[in-house]
Amino acid sequence: MKNILRSSPLFLTIIVVACNTTQPETAKETKTEPVFPKGEKITSTNFTGTAWLQMLVPNDSTYYTSIGNVIFEPKARTNWHKHPGGQILLVTDGKGYYQEKNKYAQLIRKGDVIKIPPETEHWHGASSDSSLTHIAISTNLQKGSVVWLQPVTDEEYNSGQEPLSSSRPTPYH
Amino acid sequence: MKNILRSSPLFLTIIVVACNTTQPETAKETKTEPVFPKGEKITSTNFTGTAWLQMLVPNDSTYYTSIGNVIFEPKARTNWHKHPGGQILLVTDGKGYYQEKNKYAQLIRKGDVIKIPPETEHWHGASSDSSLTHIAISTNLQKGSVVWLQPVTDEEYNSGQEPLSSSRPTPYH
Repeated sequence: MKNILRSSPLFLTIIVVACNTTQPETAKETKTEPVFPKGEKITSTNFTGTAWLQMLVPNDSTYYTSIGNVIFEPKARTNWHKHPGGQILLVTDGKGYYQEKNKYAQLIRKGDVIKIPPETEHWHGASSDSSLTHIAISTNLQKGSVVWLQPVTDEEYNSGQEPLSSSRPTPYH
Repeated sequence: MKNILRSSPLFLTIIVVACNTTQPETAKETKTEPVFPKGEKITSTNFTGTAWLQMLVPNDSTYYTSIGNVIFEPKARTNWHKHPGGQILLVTDGKGYYQEKNKYAQLIRKGDVIKIPPETEHWHGASSDSSLTHIAISTNLQKGSVVWLQPVTDEEYNSGQEPLSSSRPTPYH
């Protein structure tokens, strides 16, 4: 009987059908949709690779704050840039890097909060094997908008990590 | 062959085993953990019901911004209060209400972004049948901290909704 079952295509078909009727329900119960949509593909030359932006709050003279949800596909990253009034990143999914000029790149991932001080040259983006999603909160925009600088070269992207990645930001997960 | 398979306990056992080996893997792949932890139970008298706070960014003189992740259990809500420098809420899970003084309460839910203008008396909290999670971003704190006022009574909580809930904030979901 065992051998008959194992060699029967009908047996395999029935198992597949039986499993398929239960799997979608399981997936439905546990899958969580992203909070914000993917938004628009970023076409700016201030980015390398493919990234997406959903603006949530544009800057205005009441809040002097802008908020955007950004998704970087693997290897995508910003150019080097700086914020006159600072920026705060809330990493909500995936894995990536944050690097300040003349420092090692820090591994950042879901649950991390990164405070980017005013006028500090830096970049952020996804790791090579994962996408990265973060909410970017630009603060004190009465001090000026982002200043874009040169692209992060492949050499910079591939060689910027600390050898023993000991310096991670405070995790909230 | 078909009848033999259908009536065989061995057949059922094999299907169950086959499915059980795939389900945990499916659940693991699709289940999403909350981005931020629940934090500490709020014991302040400025809240009604049970709510939790995970501070992500405390205010300082560089950013003049504080960010907290707040979870309201069903029926929990803030007191009436106002922010001298304004506040922005990003609703990341569940369902609740946002109400400004002398206006109807607005239904808010996952994906909504609420801009609370400076000096505007208001409250926010969960609906009676759902919890609410939001990220609260207090802006321009150089203008002063939150000013707490009276509790939202049960009568206010239960009667503040617009009859035909037509005025919802711009949804991002």
